Amino acid sequence: MLSQLSLKTNSHSELVDITSLLKETVTNSKVRDGICYVFVPHTTAGLTITENTDSNVKRDLLMKLNKVIDWNDKDYHHSEGNSAAHIKAAMVGFSLTVFIRNGQLLIGTWQNIYFAEFDGPRPRKVWVKII
Amino acid sequence: MLSQLSLKTNSHSELVDITSLLKETVTNSKVRDGICYVFVPHTTAGLTITENTDSNVKRDLLMKLNKVIDWNDKDYHHSEGNSAAHIKAAMVGFSLTVFIRNGQLLIGTWQNIYFAEFDGPRPRKVWVKII
Amino acid sequence: MLSQLSLKTNSHSELVDITSLLKETVTNSKVRDGICYVFVPHTTAGLTITENTDSNVKRDLLMKLNKVIDWNDKDYHHSEGNSAAHIKAAMVGFSLTVFIRNGQLLIGTWQNIYFAEFDGPRPRKVWVKII
Repeated sequence: MLSQLSLKTNSHSELVDITSLLKETVTNSKVRDGICYVFVPHTTAGLTITENTDSNVKRDLLMKLNKVIDWNDKDYHHSEGNSAAHIKAAMVGFSLTVFIRNGQLLIGTWQNIYFAEFDGPRPRKVWVKII
Repeated sequence: MLSQLSLKTNSHSELVDITSLLKETVTNSKVRDGICYVFVPHTTAGLTITENTDSNVKRDLLMKLNKVIDWNDKDYHHSEGNSAAHIKAAMVGFSLTVFIRNGQLLIGTWQNIYFAEFDGPRPRKVWVKII
Repeated sequence: MLSQLSLKTNSHSELVDITSLLKETVTNSKVRDGICYVFVPHTTAGLTITENTDSNVKRDLLMKLNKVIDWNDKDYHHSEGNSAAHIKAAMVGFSLTVFIRNGQLLIGTWQNIYFAEFDGPRPRKVWVKII
């Protein structure tokens, strides 16, 4: 089963929690034991997993990546000026594989799954396949 | 088949070779041709692949990531103080997909698979699913 | 179906577009709806996705990673001197999972899939499994 989730990001850089959207997709699939593949079809946004408790973890992750892959390096040549977003998306990655057990998405106690926006705000898509 | 591997890390930052644990899991599964999915259910540890010969490669990888994502940036807000570990885990990633052929885990000659501890020492888990 | 693609990189650092090779592999597999797994069996090269239009995006990605993970850090101990290549490969990753729908590789409008060479030029392999 292949599904497309739509979301709207609200900031330039942002980690959007998509865990409950994914859980709902798993429930709807009626798959009891299987795999949930998540794929982001963009080049300036990716997918990551991080702590679901203190929102400062998300803030620190975005802050530090933004400092390391700074937006205004004079050596960037790309005319649209958003090379930093492409690089950060490549660093976190575009695909994720999560197990399903007893009809539930199997993730760690402290984990949530995030859409990593690096060049928003924009309407975005996430593709999910469940087997 | 879904398995849970347990391991105990010994240092604050450490690459623990889990290749033989994974090979054993593949052998036990009796799968001849398939896929081995590996998933780390933590937020301050991940998974990576690197050279299995000179252990200085592992050392250099940890050293350099530690320098780039330094532990003591004054702009971190997370109260537990381990934001750097979350960021490095997000950079290497939490899931890995490896092929199985003729009952063997199929990896490159110089590759081994490592559990990447960034906030140890701790007891840790690795989830493995083989199809 | 497990296939091995061979390629020859031409530069020290280079993003080689393997999208059409992968599309051809998908077509040959005759799989209509499924998954295409891609795996790089090396330790100084990986896989990534980025924009397929302005080639300066690829250039900027390589330039910036090369600046952040500089080649000549005096603290590297690895005798072969290519630690930076191992680190950058670990950052982009070695495996990728892409969906197949109606016999076509399903990627975003602006996405292409790239073999990320960080220590070339060399002959290289890419393994592809389609289910």
